[in-house]
Amino acid sequence: MNYSELNWMQIEAYLAEDDRLILVIGATEQHGYLSVLTDVLIPQPLAEAASEHTGVLVAPPLPFGSSPYFLAYPGTISLRMNTLLAVLEDMLRSAYGQGFRKFLVLNGHGGNRGAKAVVDELANQLPGLEAYWYDWWLSPVVPEIAAKHNLTNTHANWSEAFSFTRVTDLPEGEKLFPGPAASFEAKKVRQHFGDGSYGGHYQAPDTVMDEIFNACVQEVISLLERLGK
Amino acid sequence: MNYSELNWMQIEAYLAEDDRLILVIGATEQHGYLSVLTDVLIPQPLAEAASEHTGVLVAPPLPFGSSPYFLAYPGTISLRMNTLLAVLEDMLRSAYGQGFRKFLVLNGHGGNRGAKAVVDELANQLPGLEAYWYDWWLSPVVPEIAAKHNLTNTHANWSEAFSFTRVTDLPEGEKLFPGPAASFEAKKVRQHFGDGSYGGHYQAPDTVMDEIFNACVQEVISLLERLGK
Amino acid sequence: MNYSELNWMQIEAYLAEDDRLILVIGATEQHGYLSVLTDVLIPQPLAEAASEHTGVLVAPPLPFGSSPYFLAYPGTISLRMNTLLAVLEDMLRSAYGQGFRKFLVLNGHGGNRGAKAVVDELANQLPGLEAYWYDWWLSPVVPEIAAKHNLTNTHANWSEAFSFTRVTDLPEGEKLFPGPAASFEAKKVRQHFGDGSYGGHYQAPDTVMDEIFNACVQEVISLLERLGK
Amino acid sequence: MNYSELNWMQIEAYLAEDDRLILVIGATEQHGYLSVLTDVLIPQPLAEAASEHTGVLVAPPLPFGSSPYFLAYPGTISLRMNTLLAVLEDMLRSAYGQGFRKFLVLNGHGGNRGAKAVVDELANQLPGLEAYWYDWWLSPVVPEIAAKHNLTNTHANWSEAFSFTRVTDLPEGEKLFPGPAASFEAKKVRQHFGDGSYGGHYQAPDTVMDEIFNACVQEVISLLERLGK
Amino acid sequence: MNYSELNWMQIEAYLAEDDRLILVIGATEQHGYLSVLTDVLIPQPLAEAASEHTGVLVAPPLPFGSSPYFLAYPGTISLRMNTLLAVLEDMLRSAYGQGFRKFLVLNGHGGNRGAKAVVDELANQLPGLEAYWYDWWLSPVVPEIAAKHNLTNTHANWSEAFSFTRVTDLPEGEKLFPGPAASFEAKKVRQHFGDGSYGGHYQAPDTVMDEIFNACVQEVISLLERLGK
Amino acid sequence: MNYSELNWMQIEAYLAEDDRLILVIGATEQHGYLSVLTDVLIPQPLAEAASEHTGVLVAPPLPFGSSPYFLAYPGTISLRMNTLLAVLEDMLRSAYGQGFRKFLVLNGHGGNRGAKAVVDELANQLPGLEAYWYDWWLSPVVPEIAAKHNLTNTHANWSEAFSFTRVTDLPEGEKLFPGPAASFEAKKVRQHFGDGSYGGHYQAPDTVMDEIFNACVQEVISLLERLGK
Repeated sequence: MNYSELNWMQIEAYLAEDDRLILVIGATEQHGYLSVLTDVLIPQPLAEAASEHTGVLVAPPLPFGSSPYFLAYPGTISLRMNTLLAVLEDMLRSAYGQGFRKFLVLNGHGGNRGAKAVVDELANQLPGLEAYWYDWWLSPVVPEIAAKHNLTNTHANWSEAFSFTRVTDLPEGEKLFPGPAASFEAKKVRQHFGDGSYGGHYQAPDTVMDEIFNACVQEVISLLERLGK
Repeated sequence: MNYSELNWMQIEAYLAEDDRLILVIGATEQHGYLSVLTDVLIPQPLAEAASEHTGVLVAPPLPFGSSPYFLAYPGTISLRMNTLLAVLEDMLRSAYGQGFRKFLVLNGHGGNRGAKAVVDELANQLPGLEAYWYDWWLSPVVPEIAAKHNLTNTHANWSEAFSFTRVTDLPEGEKLFPGPAASFEAKKVRQHFGDGSYGGHYQAPDTVMDEIFNACVQEVISLLERLGK
Repeated sequence: MNYSELNWMQIEAYLAEDDRLILVIGATEQHGYLSVLTDVLIPQPLAEAASEHTGVLVAPPLPFGSSPYFLAYPGTISLRMNTLLAVLEDMLRSAYGQGFRKFLVLNGHGGNRGAKAVVDELANQLPGLEAYWYDWWLSPVVPEIAAKHNLTNTHANWSEAFSFTRVTDLPEGEKLFPGPAASFEAKKVRQHFGDGSYGGHYQAPDTVMDEIFNACVQEVISLLERLGK
Repeated sequence: MNYSELNWMQIEAYLAEDDRLILVIGATEQHGYLSVLTDVLIPQPLAEAASEHTGVLVAPPLPFGSSPYFLAYPGTISLRMNTLLAVLEDMLRSAYGQGFRKFLVLNGHGGNRGAKAVVDELANQLPGLEAYWYDWWLSPVVPEIAAKHNLTNTHANWSEAFSFTRVTDLPEGEKLFPGPAASFEAKKVRQHFGDGSYGGHYQAPDTVMDEIFNACVQEVISLLERLGK
Repeated sequence: MNYSELNWMQIEAYLAEDDRLILVIGATEQHGYLSVLTDVLIPQPLAEAASEHTGVLVAPPLPFGSSPYFLAYPGTISLRMNTLLAVLEDMLRSAYGQGFRKFLVLNGHGGNRGAKAVVDELANQLPGLEAYWYDWWLSPVVPEIAAKHNLTNTHANWSEAFSFTRVTDLPEGEKLFPGPAASFEAKKVRQHFGDGSYGGHYQAPDTVMDEIFNACVQEVISLLERLGK
Repeated sequence: MNYSELNWMQIEAYLAEDDRLILVIGATEQHGYLSVLTDVLIPQPLAEAASEHTGVLVAPPLPFGSSPYFLAYPGTISLRMNTLLAVLEDMLRSAYGQGFRKFLVLNGHGGNRGAKAVVDELANQLPGLEAYWYDWWLSPVVPEIAAKHNLTNTHANWSEAFSFTRVTDLPEGEKLFPGPAASFEAKKVRQHFGDGSYGGHYQAPDTVMDEIFNACVQEVISLLERLGK
């Protein structure tokens, strides 16, 4: 269940039974031919699928993250790391104040990982707060499935090209891996990566995508179960 | 068009033609029997309807605002005003850096108005930036339509009970107006407002709701037109 | 009584009897032909008159507020909203720590309203803190009295031209209302408003001014009484 | 001339001739038997007297400073050093933006000296900005005059007991110097200093006070002259 | 060469020839039986060895990082992520202002990686700034060498037990890997990890340690060479 | 004992006996012909010598301070005062959380004194925290010893030219005192002070330097003793 489908009384009823909450944090940034919201559009259905299985509530996704290096691509909206830390702190404190204690931060964007620090800082201040942080693409299952199909997962390639992140036709074939950018200045990053993909195939069969999605849902479910009620 | 339906190349193409952008900012807070996302669920379709008419792009909505006084109601997620100022600054700077110049901040929540200050502060720093701020419920057309139907619009009563903000059946009849709270401490605010509505009818006929929605869409359209391309 | 007339022992004696405090916050900004301190010079005597009647103490006025849109007018000193929030927090925490519990923020400037958020945030942290926020010019009595005399009250017109805010002779007659500025960039705001008045008569008879002043004092008194001792 | 006596047009006229500005910063804190505003009530007339002689404008005084160690004395209102830095930055940037270039920060309170750092930081960012910082009580003339009369100047003793800082009768005679506090925790500071004076005579003859006041005015005048127009 | 061995004239002379600078950032935190300064004591000699080879200057190491999860171990001094971002920004801006353009951030501590965001943010503001970020223990060569010797590298085990990080005798043998902590609250982290090592052998032969050290020095050298002069 | 020579278990053992800690804060800034680390290289051995005598622990020195006025000299790395306040707060809170209660801030740099405010602010929040602040060069013994030898101590002259701060040969003879700079803008400060010394002799005999060093060590020892265990 998502917050958008609930009023406060229903959330209060939930809290009488369970104190877990999924916080989805994403990004609005270039993803090659895919939606600029890709980093929300992937973790959000992961959260919802896991929620369906476990009954754990899903808070509204934060659609912005830390993406300074992509700011030269139109459509990127980046928060300073400072701001991101503050937003995540406020989300956690608000929910904690109402009785939530166990949080799964379901992160869709690599640039956000630095914000985990504020979760740890709060764990020292708010007794009983427990939090896991899950980056779906860093889970070992993702490169394992990729390898099985002779694929490599990276930013804005096939591995993020789900049916729900596609907004146009995707190129056939493969892009040479350009390697890491020599500079993190946004203009140079754009010169380096061109269309925005970090290389490899632009697409993979739906069966591969489903395999990845389902494997990640299983992981989210087991993290939620580990958090207990 | 929403950012979620577009990739960066399409946004770049848009920028070659237009430099306007709609920023929807809302809240996640108690709205009586209505969705806790009400303050996003209203401005977002207003933005989309106006976008359909004018072609102006809609950035991803910020689902959190400043609601400290409702924190005792489960489901409220409130940003400190400080944090909200920082988020709005980052949103504007990111888009400005890519060529957007004219912004309509379409605000869904009263507690966010203080954040207008940062828009004005940025207008002195970013040459050519123009921004309007629109609070749909403060538009004179809303109380006018309400008065025509012998209704009063206020927080979490009929005036926010659109088909898309309802998540349960609504009470019949009317709630006495409890008057302003004597304190803004969240616990006392909850004691004062009980179910969260500020009073009056819980529902109004669909025709009234449509009248309000359409009047506001017209206003958003004319603000976008005044901003020019 | 003002803080300036008291030493700490006298304030301690007051606290043994009463825990109310008036915080005056104003602005230093263009007010057309009137003093740039107008937004302090009005709320300060309101506070003092109410203090005389109720005995409630008046803290030193904060002479600066949030006025980014007027920065192109010489003599405007504007705090970032961020800064204003911090100052108000520090004022409240200092006084709360000494036993003050009930605050009336007597605000003289429209741009400061966003700072009310920090009062609400603190109300959740400091048990027993109660605070009202009073914007004298938004009180219904002001437009009512204005209407009775066929006048409209707005920034830097007759409605702020008290004997104690005048620093030069005022123009006779009326200024056309220029309407709202199209932009909030300070340079454009100045181009738009010229002499700084938002329009209407530059002056009104002393009897009208006294009527407004006295009506506002009565309101401040009744807010102080509602706060109780 | 003070800002309170001027409208923006008059300040603009001043700027056509002169780009100097006096910023008075003080404190609201215990001063023994003297007014809690003592640290404003002394620098403000110093500024005004020097202004009368030189014609240099005086901005509205900031009545709050950094006084955490006196917070256990009722009537002390202390800004965090952080806040004070932000306020001073905003004051300087506002005035600089309108053409002021040469600033005399006339400081009335020892705890504020750390804020000088922000003046130096801004001097690297705002071309042509020049600023002096003047702490009247640290000027060598003050202890020299004191010594001549067999007196020692320190916090809240005779050396701050001007006619305009007295709010009650002052004790006769002398207080033993209690020496520095062993701790800066506000409660212990109060236990240590009792009535708040740091020791010595509570009063000195008016002729001594005038001698000090006039010597400081001369110093302010010569700093203003050194700043040039 | 280190800053400590140079005066400003020598650094100016260096800048006439080269614009590279190594910034060492570490941590003061529990490292099991090893020095609490381990995360400085490793990157600092790496920097010095690479400096000897390339002539690139080494700025004074920042001895504090983000380690909230180890705060229950005496001797841990942790900066909030916020603070760390600010320090790194100030270090970069200071050096950039004097002509340094190419930076190698030689990081000794995992918790600091979130601070890379501020380097990227600055790369968009300071033209020509280039920066690499190097985490020695994440370099593929480290686990490769470890694997060759049937070892696993992790926090506070043999892989950080260099001659210069040892402050006492180290335990013989191996610690079972306790696995990741279930919570990041500092108290629970300490309960979980006990002596602070994340498991595995406490020591390895000097030849293994030298192999790792030398491999990392080679990597630092080649990053410096890639940065060019 | 320094933190670098200890592991957490040893620090825990220390805390069972003593709750004092020395925090050395310095600067990285021009010091004429002397090391840019002079303001660390002096207080650090003072701390170590006092530690040897008293057994009080020494935390890792913060090598950066507030030096905006020297930024035009290569090799100066300056923290904004804001940042410095945050770092000092984090250092104190970290150590306090582990049981340290009595702190001696051994400061090596004049520009850092404003940061004392945060120590006082924390003293009101952390029960039992006691802290002294020691600026060695402001101790009366330093000018007394100087006067005895017909010398004047000031920035970057003989008084900081210890054997351990010298990195090159020093000029013979004396520099005329240029007097205070007319501006604190870094470029003008450099024009004014040239080689960076504030004037006077560049060197003094080792016996004078030892006399000063030993006198300061005695003072540090007696402050530590006054703090008690």
